[in-house]
Amino acid sequence: MKLLRHGPAGAEKPGILDAEGGVRDLSGIVRDIDAATLSPEGLDRLRGLDLGSLPLVDENVRLGVPVAHVGNLVCIGLNYTDHAEETNAPIPSQPIIFNKHTGALSGPFDDVILPPGSTKLDWEVELAFVIGRPCWHVSEEEALSYVAGYTILNDLSEREYQLEWEGQWAKGKSYPTFAPCGPWLVTGDEVGDPQNLDLWLDLNGRREQTGTTTRMIFTCAHIVAYASRFMALQPGDIITTGTPPGVGLGRKPPVFMKAGDTMRLGITGLGEQQQTLKPRAA
Amino acid sequence: MKLLRHGPAGAEKPGILDAEGGVRDLSGIVRDIDAATLSPEGLDRLRGLDLGSLPLVDENVRLGVPVAHVGNLVCIGLNYTDHAEETNAPIPSQPIIFNKHTGALSGPFDDVILPPGSTKLDWEVELAFVIGRPCWHVSEEEALSYVAGYTILNDLSEREYQLEWEGQWAKGKSYPTFAPCGPWLVTGDEVGDPQNLDLWLDLNGRREQTGTTTRMIFTCAHIVAYASRFMALQPGDIITTGTPPGVGLGRKPPVFMKAGDTMRLGITGLGEQQQTLKPRAA
Repeated sequence: MKLLRHGPAGAEKPGILDAEGGVRDLSGIVRDIDAATLSPEGLDRLRGLDLGSLPLVDENVRLGVPVAHVGNLVCIGLNYTDHAEETNAPIPSQPIIFNKHTGALSGPFDDVILPPGSTKLDWEVELAFVIGRPCWHVSEEEALSYVAGYTILNDLSEREYQLEWEGQWAKGKSYPTFAPCGPWLVTGDEVGDPQNLDLWLDLNGRREQTGTTTRMIFTCAHIVAYASRFMALQPGDIITTGTPPGVGLGRKPPVFMKAGDTMRLGITGLGEQQQTLKPRAA
Repeated sequence: MKLLRHGPAGAEKPGILDAEGGVRDLSGIVRDIDAATLSPEGLDRLRGLDLGSLPLVDENVRLGVPVAHVGNLVCIGLNYTDHAEETNAPIPSQPIIFNKHTGALSGPFDDVILPPGSTKLDWEVELAFVIGRPCWHVSEEEALSYVAGYTILNDLSEREYQLEWEGQWAKGKSYPTFAPCGPWLVTGDEVGDPQNLDLWLDLNGRREQTGTTTRMIFTCAHIVAYASRFMALQPGDIITTGTPPGVGLGRKPPVFMKAGDTMRLGITGLGEQQQTLKPRAA
């Protein structure tokens, strides 16, 4: 299933994609794509639906973040060997964990806001997954049964804020619209093996990132099990798993974005996103 | 006003402390200590109440985190000169920002859980504040008008996870019960100047931390304004402002906690907390 949320920002309704790519409204069936819907029982209930009986939504409707009430936006850093190398960072021996502020989340086609004075904004296509049930001290073998589904996340990163100013990475990763997420939450049964997906990102029509999740240092299952030793993951938590090579910071000399630039990005089976960069309105 | 949440974990009800220190139930007045209650209008409405007319709750009731639906738990690192020195860290020139997973939050008197195998668990008494209305790109002059109130947060930190393993600090700061919060949310009008409060923490009855917020490198107002340039703070977000000297990591040799140890901590006007360390049940 491909779950989604449609409508104006802050007033999204739950929906589901039908076999023809039409958006069907789920408002009459579930309250939202929330903890109840993301649970194994909640997903099973949706699997029995006749999608053709649900209201068809205007195909030009805005799509929002496909999960409501995201509790935590947890990120894994430097999870592709070739990306660690391009940024001159050592290959991690354990997953690197940090957070983005949840206010960074935005719809997959919403404009990305360039912060006032920002000159080092970079792109990062990432495979993200969403936790479906409480997850604490779980084994790697059972880990993926805690994952409700997968989606795309563009982990936008202001490199000056992240790396040149004091301290931890959250500072450069948390600005509003720095986490476009979607278009859909694709359930695990439909994704199959999350370690065999292609990722790509174009900037202004030029291919910048090409990757495959076969090159992840730490698999999704390993990340769930590892993170669950340090935090009690909650339904609706999003974990984004790091970016493959091809970011602007890795170019020689580095390349960063300016107002008007357009990113287009996708992952096998998870759809595509597109964002244009706009300065913050005064 | 001293707002609070009382009752079993996960089923807390809103409450308020009366002039005699009694817990009065607010369930009939507000849904919870949530965004609506924390707004300036929400707080004004509570100020007009006759507390004596509200139901008195059993004085032995458990207290929970005094804020519901905490969206983000944002932390400031190394914000006291003397604490930075004791941990051999450079004095920051800008606030260091990181996050704890919100699943770390627990009640002010709940047991703290010692993770399996943990040998370097440390204490950190901190002044925390709660955002009352959306806060993005605000000035230092207006910053405190975005703060609904203040509370105590014990920023428990597993130093091996935080400092010796790969990457960012979140890993050592996010375990369930690593953020006891409360007992009350004391509104800004009652706290007065947040930069003139004493903080202290005892371990097993021995004074370990003694500090004053006059020694903060970055004031609460500065932190709000600074953080609001990097993230859109939301009602219910908690920001904890760093710890004064006296942590276990700073002792020569370092001192860490073991099961059975008891912490007691307090801040002028904000009450006290007490937690006992328990191993995680198998």
